Amino acid sequence: LRTGFPEVIWSQGKTPEQIRQIIHVMRQNSPLVMATRLEADVAETLQEQIQDLRYYPLAKIAAIGQNSNKYKGKISIVTAGTADLPVAEEAAITGELCGFTVERLWDVGVAGIHRLLNHRHLITQADILIVVAGMEGALPSVVAGLANCPVIAVPTSIGYGTSFGGLSALLTMLNSCATGIGVVNIDNGFGAAMLAGQILRLANRFSEKKE
Amino acid sequence: LRTGFPEVIWSQGKTPEQIRQIIHVMRQNSPLVMATRLEADVAETLQEQIQDLRYYPLAKIAAIGQNSNKYKGKISIVTAGTADLPVAEEAAITGELCGFTVERLWDVGVAGIHRLLNHRHLITQADILIVVAGMEGALPSVVAGLANCPVIAVPTSIGYGTSFGGLSALLTMLNSCATGIGVVNIDNGFGAAMLAGQILRLANRFSEKKE
Amino acid sequence: LRTGFPEVIWSQGKTPEQIRQIIHVMRQNSPLVMATRLEADVAETLQEQIQDLRYYPLAKIAAIGQNSNKYKGKISIVTAGTADLPVAEEAAITGELCGFTVERLWDVGVAGIHRLLNHRHLITQADILIVVAGMEGALPSVVAGLANCPVIAVPTSIGYGTSFGGLSALLTMLNSCATGIGVVNIDNGFGAAMLAGQILRLANRFSEKKE
Amino acid sequence: LRTGFPEVIWSQGKTPEQIRQIIHVMRQNSPLVMATRLEADVAETLQEQIQDLRYYPLAKIAAIGQNSNKYKGKISIVTAGTADLPVAEEAAITGELCGFTVERLWDVGVAGIHRLLNHRHLITQADILIVVAGMEGALPSVVAGLANCPVIAVPTSIGYGTSFGGLSALLTMLNSCATGIGVVNIDNGFGAAMLAGQILRLANRFSEKKE
Amino acid sequence: LRTGFPEVIWSQGKTPEQIRQIIHVMRQNSPLVMATRLEADVAETLQEQIQDLRYYPLAKIAAIGQNSNKYKGKISIVTAGTADLPVAEEAAITGELCGFTVERLWDVGVAGIHRLLNHRHLITQADILIVVAGMEGALPSVVAGLANCPVIAVPTSIGYGTSFGGLSALLTMLNSCATGIGVVNIDNGFGAAMLAGQILRLANRFSEKKE
Amino acid sequence: LRTGFPEVIWSQGKTPEQIRQIIHVMRQNSPLVMATRLEADVAETLQEQIQDLRYYPLAKIAAIGQNSNKYKGKISIVTAGTADLPVAEEAAITGELCGFTVERLWDVGVAGIHRLLNHRHLITQADILIVVAGMEGALPSVVAGLANCPVIAVPTSIGYGTSFGGLSALLTMLNSCATGIGVVNIDNGFGAAMLAGQILRLANRFSEKKE
Amino acid sequence: LRTGFPEVIWSQGKTPEQIRQIIHVMRQNSPLVMATRLEADVAETLQEQIQDLRYYPLAKIAAIGQNSNKYKGKISIVTAGTADLPVAEEAAITGELCGFTVERLWDVGVAGIHRLLNHRHLITQADILIVVAGMEGALPSVVAGLANCPVIAVPTSIGYGTSFGGLSALLTMLNSCATGIGVVNIDNGFGAAMLAGQILRLANRFSEKKE
Amino acid sequence: LRTGFPEVIWSQGKTPEQIRQIIHVMRQNSPLVMATRLEADVAETLQEQIQDLRYYPLAKIAAIGQNSNKYKGKISIVTAGTADLPVAEEAAITGELCGFTVERLWDVGVAGIHRLLNHRHLITQADILIVVAGMEGALPSVVAGLANCPVIAVPTSIGYGTSFGGLSALLTMLNSCATGIGVVNIDNGFGAAMLAGQILRLANRFSEKKE
Ligand SMILES: Nc1ncnc2c1ncn2[C@@H]1O[C@H](COP(=O)(O)O)[C@@H](O)[C@H]1O
Ligand SMILES: Nc1ncnc2c1ncn2[C@@H]1O[C@H](COP(=O)(O)O)[C@@H](O)[C@H]1O
Ligand SMILES: Nc1ncnc2c1ncn2[C@@H]1O[C@H](COP(=O)(O)O)[C@@H](O)[C@H]1O
Ligand SMILES: Nc1ncnc2c1ncn2[C@@H]1O[C@H](COP(=O)(O)O)[C@@H](O)[C@H]1O
Ligand SMILES: [Mg+2]
Ligand SMILES: [Mg+2]
Ligand SMILES: [Mg+2]
Ligand SMILES: [Mg+2]
Ligand SMILES: [Mg+2]
Ligand SMILES: [Mg+2]
Ligand SMILES: [Mg+2]
Ligand SMILES: [Mg+2]
Repeated sequence: LRTGFPEVIWSQGKTPEQIRQIIHVMRQNSPLVMATRLEADVAETLQEQIQDLRYYPLAKIAAIGQNSNKYKGKISIVTAGTADLPVAEEAAITGELCGFTVERLWDVGVAGIHRLLNHRHLITQADILIVVAGMEGALPSVVAGLANCPVIAVPTSIGYGTSFGGLSALLTMLNSCATGIGVVNIDNGFGAAMLAGQILRLANRFSEKKE
Repeated sequence: LRTGFPEVIWSQGKTPEQIRQIIHVMRQNSPLVMATRLEADVAETLQEQIQDLRYYPLAKIAAIGQNSNKYKGKISIVTAGTADLPVAEEAAITGELCGFTVERLWDVGVAGIHRLLNHRHLITQADILIVVAGMEGALPSVVAGLANCPVIAVPTSIGYGTSFGGLSALLTMLNSCATGIGVVNIDNGFGAAMLAGQILRLANRFSEKKE
Repeated sequence: LRTGFPEVIWSQGKTPEQIRQIIHVMRQNSPLVMATRLEADVAETLQEQIQDLRYYPLAKIAAIGQNSNKYKGKISIVTAGTADLPVAEEAAITGELCGFTVERLWDVGVAGIHRLLNHRHLITQADILIVVAGMEGALPSVVAGLANCPVIAVPTSIGYGTSFGGLSALLTMLNSCATGIGVVNIDNGFGAAMLAGQILRLANRFSEKKE
Repeated sequence: LRTGFPEVIWSQGKTPEQIRQIIHVMRQNSPLVMATRLEADVAETLQEQIQDLRYYPLAKIAAIGQNSNKYKGKISIVTAGTADLPVAEEAAITGELCGFTVERLWDVGVAGIHRLLNHRHLITQADILIVVAGMEGALPSVVAGLANCPVIAVPTSIGYGTSFGGLSALLTMLNSCATGIGVVNIDNGFGAAMLAGQILRLANRFSEKKE
Repeated sequence: LRTGFPEVIWSQGKTPEQIRQIIHVMRQNSPLVMATRLEADVAETLQEQIQDLRYYPLAKIAAIGQNSNKYKGKISIVTAGTADLPVAEEAAITGELCGFTVERLWDVGVAGIHRLLNHRHLITQADILIVVAGMEGALPSVVAGLANCPVIAVPTSIGYGTSFGGLSALLTMLNSCATGIGVVNIDNGFGAAMLAGQILRLANRFSEKKE
Repeated sequence: LRTGFPEVIWSQGKTPEQIRQIIHVMRQNSPLVMATRLEADVAETLQEQIQDLRYYPLAKIAAIGQNSNKYKGKISIVTAGTADLPVAEEAAITGELCGFTVERLWDVGVAGIHRLLNHRHLITQADILIVVAGMEGALPSVVAGLANCPVIAVPTSIGYGTSFGGLSALLTMLNSCATGIGVVNIDNGFGAAMLAGQILRLANRFSEKKE
Repeated sequence: LRTGFPEVIWSQGKTPEQIRQIIHVMRQNSPLVMATRLEADVAETLQEQIQDLRYYPLAKIAAIGQNSNKYKGKISIVTAGTADLPVAEEAAITGELCGFTVERLWDVGVAGIHRLLNHRHLITQADILIVVAGMEGALPSVVAGLANCPVIAVPTSIGYGTSFGGLSALLTMLNSCATGIGVVNIDNGFGAAMLAGQILRLANRFSEKKE
Repeated sequence: LRTGFPEVIWSQGKTPEQIRQIIHVMRQNSPLVMATRLEADVAETLQEQIQDLRYYPLAKIAAIGQNSNKYKGKISIVTAGTADLPVAEEAAITGELCGFTVERLWDVGVAGIHRLLNHRHLITQADILIVVAGMEGALPSVVAGLANCPVIAVPTSIGYGTSFGGLSALLTMLNSCATGIGVVNIDNGFGAAMLAGQILRLANRFSEKKE
């Protein structure tokens, strides 16, 4: 486990049998193996063969084994709407499996700015923020304006018509006039958590080797 | 003057001489003629021949004659950034020439939500709002969430890279999860003012025929 | 009910149980709750648990409770073709639930301009027009040229090939050389009605406070 | 002259000298040579060397020699706005050089449908129509609905923002729910006239070999 | 029957019952009613209620009644590949129902230019050509280069990857350096036949009024 | 100076006079003011009025005043090609002005992987990496695969044809199968540095409050 | 068999019966017939009628007959990820059916450059390389930088979000700053093998006619 | 000179001084250095400092030194139109500088298939073909259908309107139903020649190590 992170399988386009085999090989060398984008029925099939496989249905993640790492700091995850939850949970479960504390703040979209402002202390005191939003994707701009920490923006494919499968939200995030925002692929909650994890690990390294 | 609005010339792709001739014909029948998207040097040339031609350089609008209409209510125009001013002024001057009171609120982009919130009474008490924004174009979503009146969103071509000449801002506005927003073409301050004018005139008609 | 409008649930990507819970919470504080984009089978499931839930199948809207507001003026809705009806009805039912009178003018596409011209008095005397069109989306331009009131243009995803899921109609509407048009997202009948509602409420406010 | 049409040079990306040489070769075998998309200054240079070269500045076409063909029937060309004139004139001059009678109907865009309806007899009695429009490009749909003859639609690059250099007008024309419309490339007045010419020549052949 | 063409129903997005009702109304006034894009199962349902409804499964067209018109000349339809047949047949059946003679030349794509050249007399002697092609859509360019008559190009959605649902073929046809080509929407065999019909009817009118 | 970062002016679309005024206001409250995307001639004009304005021509950045902050850790910036230097320098100068140590590794594109591998220790030992690449934009994937720290990917508009102004590089970076990558807008070296700065400041905070 | 290659049927959009008939005709004149993009269930149906039909399920290719050609040299096929295997196998089986030796190197994506570098001798000693990659599609750039032979790049539709069905990988490959790369359509393993085959046959011809 | 090819500088975005320095370094180790996309005025400046710099104005290539390699076989380059010449010459000069014999066949576009067929022996007897075409880009499909050797297709940015800067030609080439085609970036004559060179060198290697 060179990176200190779990081994990860991207399940899309793989048969249950292929996934089972990869898990089998990976767990020899890694205390924690996880699979993303795993449908519930495939997870069930796998559980018959791999007794200790845990499944997180909203996040569509399966995990086998434990991560003994514990890091200082936490990942704060913010979503614009209920429909963004699967992507946000993919980020949250990934973060937790990697050994981080995760704080969830759901349903604080910009069209009702009050709800967001009511929780502004969560934003201003965050270590690192993952902001998940579909449709117009404006939430990361507002959040990054309030925050003073790195912000990871995750566009989701939620929407219709000119949301173009998340493209509108993606462009919004890339064009943000707020600073300190890094963007990941549409619906890529996993990738956002991995980047957040890299950032918090860097902070932990600084903390350890301090003076 | 069937509509009660000025006669309007779209100057793009017309020679000074063509514009002069159209003005000449139009002013016979209309107390107020205006030309949009008129470059400063062309305006100067025209002023030599049309003594009473007034020119608004930031808005790139020329006007000849006066509008005697005066309507109740006002058009409130909000911009995200300084670079959006030419489009916002195109809307403002058009609105004023049509006989409306115009209120300007410049430079209240979402990345610094404080400035916007400091002026929230202007938003909540507006009759009708025109919101002008480039780059990620998130301002109309936030404004419409605070407001309780019609909102006209104008994407601008301000930005670079993935702003794609205003496309990003346009998509943001069309996908807004706030309600009560109508969108016009990129950089179309004129069209936004004309729609706002139609809306305020409807309100004036209701007001007049009241009881 | 700050805005005077019903509470609204966007049903896409929510489970029946989630929708039921949100309705349950919302109806405590709001005399009228509505859900858009609700499939017929989900509506049926919900009706077993919520006896007073009404369902409008063409509009795919469910409503619980009544709106006591009654506003002056009416929303006139115009469609180009039969296939645009679901979107037009989403607008119509939304408008009626919000307390407005709705007038429907179906199937007056520009390829047979006679039918539209036969009804031109409906256009010229309208308070506010919602124009719904797919394929080439040219109807709002012609209607706005005849009308002297605000026009809300709704592109639909009806068509094939280069209609690109409503993109062609959307671009047509944004580029209209007629003035006084505000555009909403593809298939967004709901949003068009909410904007029309905001406009008519503004007119009602002017009408009331008139002295 | 196999086709009975002039020899044609597309001047874009060619030097004056290259164009001169091609004209020199072509006129050996062809009574009429024409060059499209020729800038005025290049035309002037060429006129010094080719005394009988005629230049049509609005159409940006040069012609050398005469066409002795005369065909029955006429090509009717309709434009939406003044800015579409260069493309319409490219079609008109091409049609005339090919030996056809051309009828021009300028500035009858759909936003003021009255002007178009005032000239409807020109539409209903046409042999073949070329309809030239930029921005939203809705004119061909309305014209084809009124007409009972072939309609050739030419999108122009006139507009701004979401006109996307003529793409919006093009999509409108391809998606028209009116029938009997063939579309050519953006700004391709020349191609429209050539297609109209082929159609009228077919009609002339039918007329000749009749009974 | 003002136009002399059948009444046509576009079946997409209509229920069998709606289609049945429209047929019922239309056949009162029209000797021939046709419906395009009608799925086989819907056609079967309709045949139970409308005994004289004929169904052309490859073209997905239903017809009721007869067309007594007979026109001089023929429509020649050329396809690049087997997969383009449904679109080509939509054109062919439409043409025949409108009263035209139709000639079919299938499977002569440009990658094996020999097959096309072997049939070049069909091309050079055609009255009017409809050329149907998917993937790269190059056939109309080659055909129009050989032909001396109007050519109608129909891009199809056949292909994968960068064919982008027919967009690649469409762009090829619009950019053709051959002249005399009019383009219709992707997969619009119906529209191509209607345009061909308008062209041949014009030729018939010329032929008749000839003295 | 709430954020601890300099005040920043985005110079695009502002006149020298406007920029001068904004600098004048900002420097009252901020020890360090910087302007990005400032052309050399404008900088020269400004230097006549603001004696202590420093200009970095490759980065197109002007700075007034000093930043007293000094942070632990460094920002490592890697470029694929020479033409990416202006964007990389925008990032580098921004980083240095914000108080960070910056390490530059130029011209290590993936087409000659040897050069990159020769410097792999710089990659594996980095605190945080900014990777700048145009054309195919593949460098961040390879770098992130070697690194074990956060990676910020900056697509540039360098290239031609299908580079589509940086779109190709942007898509590459968003789709990277390496993890730990956050992407910013095309050519946005400034934004990359600000995100890197936020990340390093977080690490510094952790370091300080340690134990 | 003019080309020396098998006869090939593209099965998409063809019925089993159509495919059977085409096979029947083709095998009269060709020792080897193959069908690509053939689904497993269709293959099974065909095997009932064509006893000697072999089916390669991963490649979705069927073959009837044998190819007696044997060529010098080999085609080396490299893939980035497991999900790219079907496309890679389409190339591999096509190459083998054409008479070439095929070498497979699976799962050497750029995010873990070590695996690729461990096999670099396969790259540097290859005759011709087919590189198959989805998502960001960066592998061909790195491979072509290591190799000194022709490289054929095949983008796959593997990925999600901004992979846009293979578009991102395609653009990456077209923009590669490595030289000696030819690109084929998304998922076109067949086409890549045919191009590789043409290249190796050219080399065989040179080898034969040598001095 | 590991690859046996010249060292190449891509001049876009480099100053004359930068190019001069790179040439200076490269020529120490390489008998032949070339620079592509070099404007004529920059070349002139360089020639003052580098006496033996040769400049090919149509190809916009500069070369210093000689290539002693001579390979068997030739590269045949075919263009559709005159405007494609600069790209074709970039390919031709690159090929010659690399030590290959180049055969040029200009102006054989598909709209006049006769000219191409008149030269078919050049196609059928070619070792390797580079086919350069803009606008609809159909030429490679027809050529590859006639040829029995590898074909490299180069889309050019020649055209207007829907040619979209070469995108239309590119898509045509990627979607070609002819086999044996590899595509390079828009206007990338250099890359096409390098790929052709790799292919011919492979053939030369086979020829040498023969038996
Ligand atoms: N949901 C996801 N989105 C993007 N990348 C992922 C995702 N899940 C896993 N990955 C990446 O994909 C790699 C595994 O891909 P594979 O070898 O195809 O299973 C992992 O190392 C992760 O970096
Ligand atoms: N800046 C503008 N943007 C959009 N439409 C405009 C603008 N200025 C004028 N127009 C419209 O263009 C029409 C005049 O166009 P034209 O006849 O070409 O001068 C006016 O009636 C307006 O409706
Ligand atoms: N396959 C088709 N493609 C394009 N337009 C069609 C097609 N079939 C019918 N139409 C047109 O659609 C009109 C009928 O549309 P509707 O009223 O929706 O049934 C007809 O008059 C035709 O002009
Ligand atoms: N016209 C061109 N198009 C594409 N790639 C080129 C071109 N000219 C040179 N190159 C490549 O760019 C590399 C040099 O890039 P640079 O280091 O920026 O000068 C060369 O090794 C070539 O592989
Ligand atoms: Mg912040
Ligand atoms: Mg509101
Ligand atoms: Mg109007
Ligand atoms: Mg008609
Ligand atoms: Mg022809
Ligand atoms: Mg890493
Ligand atoms: Mg190489
Ligand atoms: Mg061939």
